[in-house]
Amino acid sequence: MKPSPLAPPHLPALHPVEGIRLATGRSGIKYKDRDDVMLMVADQPVAAAGTLTSSRTCSAAVDWCRSQLAGGKARAILVNAGNANAFTGRLGEDSVHRCAAATAGAVGCTESEVLLASTGVIGEPMADEKITSLLPHMMENLSPSGWTEAAGAIRTTDTFAKAASRQVTIGGATVTITGIAKGSGMIAPDMATMLAFLATDADISAPLLQDILREATDASFNAITVDSDTSTSDTILILASGKASMQTIRRRDSVEAQIFMDTLKDLMVDLACQVVRDGEGASKFITINVTGAEDTRAARRIGLAIANSPLVKTAIAGEDANWGRIVMAVGKSGEKADRDRLTIAMGGVTIAKDGQRVDGYNETPVAEHMKGDAIIIDVDVGVGTGLSTVWTCDLTHGYISINADYRS
Amino acid sequence: MKPSPLAPPHLPALHPVEGIRLATGRSGIKYKDRDDVMLMVADQPVAAAGTLTSSRTCSAAVDWCRSQLAGGKARAILVNAGNANAFTGRLGEDSVHRCAAATAGAVGCTESEVLLASTGVIGEPMADEKITSLLPHMMENLSPSGWTEAAGAIRTTDTFAKAASRQVTIGGATVTITGIAKGSGMIAPDMATMLAFLATDADISAPLLQDILREATDASFNAITVDSDTSTSDTILILASGKASMQTIRRRDSVEAQIFMDTLKDLMVDLACQVVRDGEGASKFITINVTGAEDTRAARRIGLAIANSPLVKTAIAGEDANWGRIVMAVGKSGEKADRDRLTIAMGGVTIAKDGQRVDGYNETPVAEHMKGDAIIIDVDVGVGTGLSTVWTCDLTHGYISINADYRS
Repeated sequence: MKPSPLAPPHLPALHPVEGIRLATGRSGIKYKDRDDVMLMVADQPVAAAGTLTSSRTCSAAVDWCRSQLAGGKARAILVNAGNANAFTGRLGEDSVHRCAAATAGAVGCTESEVLLASTGVIGEPMADEKITSLLPHMMENLSPSGWTEAAGAIRTTDTFAKAASRQVTIGGATVTITGIAKGSGMIAPDMATMLAFLATDADISAPLLQDILREATDASFNAITVDSDTSTSDTILILASGKASMQTIRRRDSVEAQIFMDTLKDLMVDLACQVVRDGEGASKFITINVTGAEDTRAARRIGLAIANSPLVKTAIAGEDANWGRIVMAVGKSGEKADRDRLTIAMGGVTIAKDGQRVDGYNETPVAEHMKGDAIIIDVDVGVGTGLSTVWTCDLTHGYISINADYRS
Repeated sequence: MKPSPLAPPHLPALHPVEGIRLATGRSGIKYKDRDDVMLMVADQPVAAAGTLTSSRTCSAAVDWCRSQLAGGKARAILVNAGNANAFTGRLGEDSVHRCAAATAGAVGCTESEVLLASTGVIGEPMADEKITSLLPHMMENLSPSGWTEAAGAIRTTDTFAKAASRQVTIGGATVTITGIAKGSGMIAPDMATMLAFLATDADISAPLLQDILREATDASFNAITVDSDTSTSDTILILASGKASMQTIRRRDSVEAQIFMDTLKDLMVDLACQVVRDGEGASKFITINVTGAEDTRAARRIGLAIANSPLVKTAIAGEDANWGRIVMAVGKSGEKADRDRLTIAMGGVTIAKDGQRVDGYNETPVAEHMKGDAIIIDVDVGVGTGLSTVWTCDLTHGYISINADYRS
């Protein structure tokens, strides 16, 4: 498949994370000629945290992770692409148990230290023996530098692999965070991506890791949308090996926790925006800054109402500065907005102010902005100080072509 | 523009409503070579009711109607297509006042007896003098049989005119209800259409008329969606001339009120489904029956989650019986559903039951059903007795083509 026109020029350099190794394998369940299974293993049980889809019809693997994450410890993450093992009933649960048992056996840990994720077609029973039979080979090939291959293996309709890596000094120690993600359709909060897997060598308590992951998810994967559809399989997992030479971070109000949080959030926004850049059929990357809302939650909802509006998305696809549709979307969000104080700018040019088009509005610079592939919309709704940024892409013929014939 | 492939073969026969006359005119504001203004006049002040958009950025005309409807009386409705007079600030309010004053003058009533609606482009100041200057000519041409022309005049991107008419015997008298509607994009509850205008000769008190209209709207225009976008101008108005030889209906629990309600609801479902049949780019008319929900509201929300899912809509456009996407949409609705008791049928064929695909599922008859233009989806979510029906259309290349270049 041709890479998205919004794809970054190349995969960034990925720092290995001490204590974490990865390998990939080829199950052949759906994709031929490429790896479609990933195994991430920690050298010993480590702090683990996760955020999972809020779908009421979530997959068996999501149910499994929800149970195991309660313990805050993990050794391994096994992921396959091509079959979501969702809506597969009893068969799906059995499948998850077999995958956990086989991974525990191969890694030499308990089943409760294994986390699982599956992505792909919904409703098809999963031939899990094609996955578990790869475990011995993957165990032999585990490598600290396996991140790039792992990013490739977890893709489904993704047109490019997604990864990001950061290093930061915390308490005198160099801390690394590296992560990979996949997703391009069925992208909406909560959660906004299908899958992301991260690891760090920071020494951090599991409960705090969970709090920080939730906070960073909210500002990143929960702030993007491609098509407003929420997957049954959305999963973000993070392992913290604790190998960096530092004191364990335990308190959210410490400087160390704040630095870790800021770095993790920065990396996750990077990954989340890569997912948007691979939005099915996307030709424009859209940033929506909402200010003046009642509170942060209201600002987020207004941003998502604009980002999910098919009329706004198609106008942008058509390079049409149709700000009337933005007014419409603000209105339908259900959040407080003062129609007579509304301000809208596109590409930095104020189009409407105080509830009407500005005097002598000149569309030329805005029309020029619309021709680019990075569109910026600023909306102030004039009622408070709440603000939020949301990222999305446009809705094009490409989206229809991809989705009107995916399963067949 | 070519009529929608889902358009009815012809406009139905429309019964005149005693005491109600209509005329149309040509303002030239946006459309050339066709009428774009409609005037409906009652012979005397009559009972009036309306349901209006819940948008927080509603148009000046919607604000006007909300105020005037409180009185429960009206003489005239003036409607124009091509300019929505929305987000036009002070200019828009002035415009509404001038239209009301001019109509009151021409008809010979008070301004508060005039109702107004505008549909079309948002954010452009409206050249209202081009509308009001048509009033003398329209007054001269008022006719009880002007419904067909009126249905044509209120269209914007509609590819066919929409109208319906019913006669029923209530308390020995023949009661007529006739209505017209417009809308094809920006269609979602609340409200689901842009504009509908109805009249009846029933003798009914204004407060009861308002209650019944609200109830019938909920089962019709609030149960359809094309693209989940809510217009700034959605307006349904009804006038009741009271000319039928009957006792005034005043109580909701009377047999007469129930017959009127049933007939009005039937007519409004007919009109609402015509709007769906003209959904921008639509190639399939989709009926979604949800049962087994916690309550009616939950069933409606699940139905709308399915109806608004771009992935469900594109799968149907591609004639793909991708029921996994229906599972996904049920899950994202946020309403209670028992994944392990979920039942899904398409075209009357049960595909999944008790949380998994049925044994020996044969896709052939379902694939055949998907090739037709009337798709039926039945979903039972297995938690209660709430049920609801929602109507929508598919999402096609046509929608993108229409909306990526509407304003320019």
